[in-house]
Amino acid sequence: MAAPRRSDVVLDSVKRLLRIGATANLLNLLQKQHPADLAQIFDALLDAERSAVFSLLVERQPKLAMETISEMGPEPAAQLLTGRSADDIASLLHELPSDDAAALIDYLPEELSREVLELMRRRESGQVESLLEYGEQTAGRIMNPSVFALNEDLTVGEAITALQGARDVEMVFYLYVVDGRRHLVGVTSLRRLLLVSPETPLKRIMTPDIISVRVDTDQEEVARQVASYNLLAVPVVDEENKLAGVVTVDDVIDVIKDEATEDLLRLAGVSGDERIATPAGEALRKRLPWLAVNLVTAFVAASVVALFEDTISQVTALAVFMPIVAGMGGNAATQTLTVIVRGLALGELSWVNARKALAKESLIGLGNGVALGVAAAGVAWATKRDPVLGLLLGMAMLCNMFVAATSGTLVPLGLKALKVDPALASSVFITTFTDVLGFASFLGLATVFLKYLAR
Amino acid sequence: MAAPRRSDVVLDSVKRLLRIGATANLLNLLQKQHPADLAQIFDALLDAERSAVFSLLVERQPKLAMETISEMGPEPAAQLLTGRSADDIASLLHELPSDDAAALIDYLPEELSREVLELMRRRESGQVESLLEYGEQTAGRIMNPSVFALNEDLTVGEAITALQGARDVEMVFYLYVVDGRRHLVGVTSLRRLLLVSPETPLKRIMTPDIISVRVDTDQEEVARQVASYNLLAVPVVDEENKLAGVVTVDDVIDVIKDEATEDLLRLAGVSGDERIATPAGEALRKRLPWLAVNLVTAFVAASVVALFEDTISQVTALAVFMPIVAGMGGNAATQTLTVIVRGLALGELSWVNARKALAKESLIGLGNGVALGVAAAGVAWATKRDPVLGLLLGMAMLCNMFVAATSGTLVPLGLKALKVDPALASSVFITTFTDVLGFASFLGLATVFLKYLAR
Repeated sequence: MAAPRRSDVVLDSVKRLLRIGATANLLNLLQKQHPADLAQIFDALLDAERSAVFSLLVERQPKLAMETISEMGPEPAAQLLTGRSADDIASLLHELPSDDAAALIDYLPEELSREVLELMRRRESGQVESLLEYGEQTAGRIMNPSVFALNEDLTVGEAITALQGARDVEMVFYLYVVDGRRHLVGVTSLRRLLLVSPETPLKRIMTPDIISVRVDTDQEEVARQVASYNLLAVPVVDEENKLAGVVTVDDVIDVIKDEATEDLLRLAGVSGDERIATPAGEALRKRLPWLAVNLVTAFVAASVVALFEDTISQVTALAVFMPIVAGMGGNAATQTLTVIVRGLALGELSWVNARKALAKESLIGLGNGVALGVAAAGVAWATKRDPVLGLLLGMAMLCNMFVAATSGTLVPLGLKALKVDPALASSVFITTFTDVLGFASFLGLATVFLKYLAR
Repeated sequence: MAAPRRSDVVLDSVKRLLRIGATANLLNLLQKQHPADLAQIFDALLDAERSAVFSLLVERQPKLAMETISEMGPEPAAQLLTGRSADDIASLLHELPSDDAAALIDYLPEELSREVLELMRRRESGQVESLLEYGEQTAGRIMNPSVFALNEDLTVGEAITALQGARDVEMVFYLYVVDGRRHLVGVTSLRRLLLVSPETPLKRIMTPDIISVRVDTDQEEVARQVASYNLLAVPVVDEENKLAGVVTVDDVIDVIKDEATEDLLRLAGVSGDERIATPAGEALRKRLPWLAVNLVTAFVAASVVALFEDTISQVTALAVFMPIVAGMGGNAATQTLTVIVRGLALGELSWVNARKALAKESLIGLGNGVALGVAAAGVAWATKRDPVLGLLLGMAMLCNMFVAATSGTLVPLGLKALKVDPALASSVFITTFTDVLGFASFLGLATVFLKYLAR
């Protein structure tokens, strides 16, 4: 899908110019890039190269340096800044929008972040600190507090004048209207200002029914609202309905991407915030516990097999086929689980239609069980020349496919009801179910019908 | 996380009012809902209720009916319309933006969609048909062709007048500037128009460097550009750089969500377009082939076990522990695979840093192998009182964890290089590798050191 990227060519040039020390040419090249592209280039550089290029930018083009930082994501950005003095960092962070600065400071080593905050406070940058007071994952953390608002008593002409004087406001597509105590009372748009005469009172052309979120609203809920009402931005208010900031659609896109990534990673037993750039040691520390839990459940499943060692010693062919029953159950359960978890995340599945979903998955489980059970039975019969073995394999398969489908539906729904993230915990339970049941059904049936099996 | 939704209360009222036939009250209630909320309510209704409510809306509030349809997603929307006459559908679709209409028509049964298109053409609705001429998944399909553009020769005052006269343009945050033959030459904003005197030529305040996409650009690429440059909309041009339409950020959000959903589902062996609402029969038809492929690979792995039946018949404890080696390899491989596939999708992983990623995953594989190998060896030794069995299990585990990590990295990268979607095909390969290698290494080692094992 991806055509050879222009940025690969630029990357090679950056490395070359850096190596030969052609600073002027390098700066010239860097300035021509969009900060978002520079962030990608930074990511692809070796650590030493990255520091060198960043230091050069900080010295000669501090604004571009910080615009690039703001495109990088807080974690690598914090890594890049960690080598510098608190004083340096504080000055640089002044160039960032305060929501980006707050996110970044959160990733600095603890002592450094305290120092930086202290310095920024002395320079009267209360905004960043106050953003950090909101809980993680809340609207307060990602909102931009410098939101432009118009007083409800203005006329349209006065509003336009106010707008002409405003600088550095994040975006002026929606114009929020507030009363004298900054309570949010309405919204209008630039376009509407242009359509009426300048003497018109702002109150007359504003829409009083306005969708807003609170500073403590969960970011995923903010994303859901922006997406389902097709908004470009949503105003954020405090508990007294006073305008506190604005969340724009670009922040929402980041939330949606992170949310999807989190679900995907958690389903696979990976921490939701692991990325390609996460160091090996940290990744190992986060992945190993999940594997350890799985090792425990694998031993639980193995202990089921151990119950039937005697049967296996009489018919070793059972050991050949038993992983098929367990494994196919796991595969089918993963299909169901993924559809259910994603349906919950997209808001397409709720208690209202849960019964319908369970009925559907049960049907699919039966269908899969019949089709795959017959196929597996046929292969086992043909290869081992034992129709009874085939029959038992088919029956165990049918049974396990049905359990896979129903547990794949019920476990995530149950976890959701218990307020546990279904993406995080479901697969351990379900793998254990399908393994234990796969082994128990096949080996159990074989033990019961042992005398009919070829030795 | 989800608080009890207001829409659940509304849903109950809708059902009740429908049941008692209180049409006026029902209409009154429906009119108070946002179309996005109505779409959710529709989704939760039974089929018969949904048709009844929709017919009522079509008859009494056709505009609201179509706004709701436009929020529903094309597939359920098409299902809802399918019962009506082509004539009816064509009239209703006139109310929709043409990109939404095109997406919907695509989901109607073939004959009906042809009839509807024919009728719409007669009523001179060429726009929808021409959108359908662009390839699926291209910018052309999701763009809105009614884009407002200003001629470069206008003054700012004339531009404002033109703007005041324009109706029904999707959005006027960016103002695109075109030459006499509608070639895209620049962009400006409403806000900038307000900052200068009316006599200023538009050319003087427009930005000529404008990011645009082509009608045939892949939608995922459009999403990437809008997201990384933080755009609210991106203009779409044809092969001659003539302005053909605009893709707005709300369409992009849908693309990003669909893309993430596709990756997630495909990794689990589910078709990328399956949703909660997909009927059981269709879901089964799409899931079964993937399970069938897995059944084949499961038999391949089983045939490896069959090679060692003789060894197993002498030491049945091997049958107890062998699924652990294979299963844990599968779990570790899934972790790696998911991180790699998501990294590729987010554009964080490319050939530039692939070697670094491989080194990282190999390290993690070794770390996992040592930790879990030692743990498994200890448990096996303790439960079976056979240190050699424990040692062999630990060694096989170490070996399989390393293979899991390297194949989990190399297979998706290789598929990407072959232009195959890594989310779609990787897991089959990798499960086969880890199963085959897990069984082969453990049972192979056991066969070699058979005489040291307790019987």
